[in-house]
Amino acid sequence: MTIALDGFGAEQGFDVLAEGARRAAADGIGVRVFGPQRSLGLDGVDGIEVIPTSEWIGNDDDPVHSVRERKEASVVRAAADVAEGNAAAMVSLGSTGATMAAATFGLKRLKGVQRPALAVPIPSPKKPVLFLDVGANVEVRAQHLVQFAFLGAAFSAAVMEVHEPTVGLLTVGEEAGKGRPEIVEAHRILSESPGINFAGNIEGGDLPAAKVDVVVTDGFTGNVALKVMEGAAKELAGAISEVARQNPIAAVGGMLLKPSLGGLRKKFDPDTTGGAILLGLRSIAIVGHGASGSEGVANAIRLAARTSKVDAVGRTSALLREGHAERSALAGDDAAPAGEGLPR
Amino acid sequence: MTIALDGFGAEQGFDVLAEGARRAAADGIGVRVFGPQRSLGLDGVDGIEVIPTSEWIGNDDDPVHSVRERKEASVVRAAADVAEGNAAAMVSLGSTGATMAAATFGLKRLKGVQRPALAVPIPSPKKPVLFLDVGANVEVRAQHLVQFAFLGAAFSAAVMEVHEPTVGLLTVGEEAGKGRPEIVEAHRILSESPGINFAGNIEGGDLPAAKVDVVVTDGFTGNVALKVMEGAAKELAGAISEVARQNPIAAVGGMLLKPSLGGLRKKFDPDTTGGAILLGLRSIAIVGHGASGSEGVANAIRLAARTSKVDAVGRTSALLREGHAERSALAGDDAAPAGEGLPR
Repeated sequence: MTIALDGFGAEQGFDVLAEGARRAAADGIGVRVFGPQRSLGLDGVDGIEVIPTSEWIGNDDDPVHSVRERKEASVVRAAADVAEGNAAAMVSLGSTGATMAAATFGLKRLKGVQRPALAVPIPSPKKPVLFLDVGANVEVRAQHLVQFAFLGAAFSAAVMEVHEPTVGLLTVGEEAGKGRPEIVEAHRILSESPGINFAGNIEGGDLPAAKVDVVVTDGFTGNVALKVMEGAAKELAGAISEVARQNPIAAVGGMLLKPSLGGLRKKFDPDTTGGAILLGLRSIAIVGHGASGSEGVANAIRLAARTSKVDAVGRTSALLREGHAERSALAGDDAAPAGEGLPR
Repeated sequence: MTIALDGFGAEQGFDVLAEGARRAAADGIGVRVFGPQRSLGLDGVDGIEVIPTSEWIGNDDDPVHSVRERKEASVVRAAADVAEGNAAAMVSLGSTGATMAAATFGLKRLKGVQRPALAVPIPSPKKPVLFLDVGANVEVRAQHLVQFAFLGAAFSAAVMEVHEPTVGLLTVGEEAGKGRPEIVEAHRILSESPGINFAGNIEGGDLPAAKVDVVVTDGFTGNVALKVMEGAAKELAGAISEVARQNPIAAVGGMLLKPSLGGLRKKFDPDTTGGAILLGLRSIAIVGHGASGSEGVANAIRLAARTSKVDAVGRTSALLREGHAERSALAGDDAAPAGEGLPR
């Protein structure tokens, strides 16, 4: 199993990318790194091949335009490497928009999928929840939401090993008529779709409470909700630490409690999950956290390898074919031109 | 200062409504309660008048239709009481949709406001943030978002006593072009509007981090984000308690830490804030938490009295007039018919 890694874009620099690649390679995963050979210092490491590239696309570059124009950019070359069959999946810690554009153009969409979606496993205290779309599609139509539901269910079953995962539609009330028109319509289609375990509408609080296995929304709401949730957890943890600092007895309490909180902290550590997964393409692309440490990089590569090993894409494709998704939602498939829906 | 209270709709029953009214009356606030005289048991309490009503609108009733048809319903009578000048503001713990509909029809909109918005003070650890719209308008246009910005800024200054409050627009990236078309357009209008301290775009994480004083969004995103945030705080607190239970040393730590966390818990307790505030009408309507205890009811009444005392509505109206909102955003005011935008 070989993974193509974008050798640029880590906020902590080339060292975390190189060390992450080393750790993944030590697990027996082949890694092809597209980046600056000298800075990475990976020559001669077993299982790692560096393909020298000095060009890259940054957060300030226009993603779609840059990906189209700069064929030598590391993320574009990583996608091409997967398309050529040299690697099974790609990983990038760089610009989310550029990674999505490079993957969408380079890896092609699965049949029946109009818009790829970005999914993240939410480290809820109870059980992990797959949440999508968290940023690929700022505006959606009903059939896009339906496709996200099928994509998420297939990934949850194949990679997260959830048996017949329940899927909820995120909106402002449990009743079928609640929310924007495209949500009401998606609710109707999903309610009538065999092949998916549709649990109906869910509300914001049901996401952290892990009421369902897969939560579906548009990329705008998903992005805001994900960042609100991460921010709230961070602020609350900070406020508790602050309280513990202000009072000597509380400080002792905090010290005694702290070791046991390690597992919880690790569960919520973005490095643990590896990153977001772009679903709906013919290969998997992992969008790692720009701020990842080397374990985060290694986990992103491991996640890419695991999704490829369990044939997440093939199983997703089968579910899309088998389920009534094609018959009900995808009838008259008006696939958007490549690049539509991508962030500007 | 007299407040009209809907005497139905408290999940904990009539006792919490009656006790909440008693506590507010003890602070010198006049309370006119529209509800079942016998169940409330408030006869002869100083400062409280019970106006007997046996009809009410529940969560399962269609809000707009019920408010139009049932003139004797407690929430409709409370709104009429404010309109007739007997009370300065209204409070209801019942159906949010019915309260919004009763207020919108009964209290009338402020000049220049097309859509009232529901605002909540978010108990961020750092400082309270006013967040709107959290559910009144599932779909918005750019000029609605601009009005929400002015409404929120005026309330923050008048009632929350924030000097020249900063206002942020919630979206998926800091750059001006990020988000849905109506957000990009609202950003442009607000950037050119004197009379408001516009801080530009903010992301989800900036809401719990209290980066600005007022956060503006549409009612769909706001409702989801608010519930995600409340849910995340609850789940995280639960997970920490669970960890503390599982290990004896951690349990001692938790016990020592607990008393100091009381202040934090109180800050996050929904009863502390009193409820959501419907802004943009000629009087204030407070949408209390259905699950409130008696202190929550009292705080909702106190909040209504405070907003009236500082003339929040008059000051909001003045800001809307003074600022360039009218000139830039409200030019060609195409006020929606009453009821449009209200939840179904």
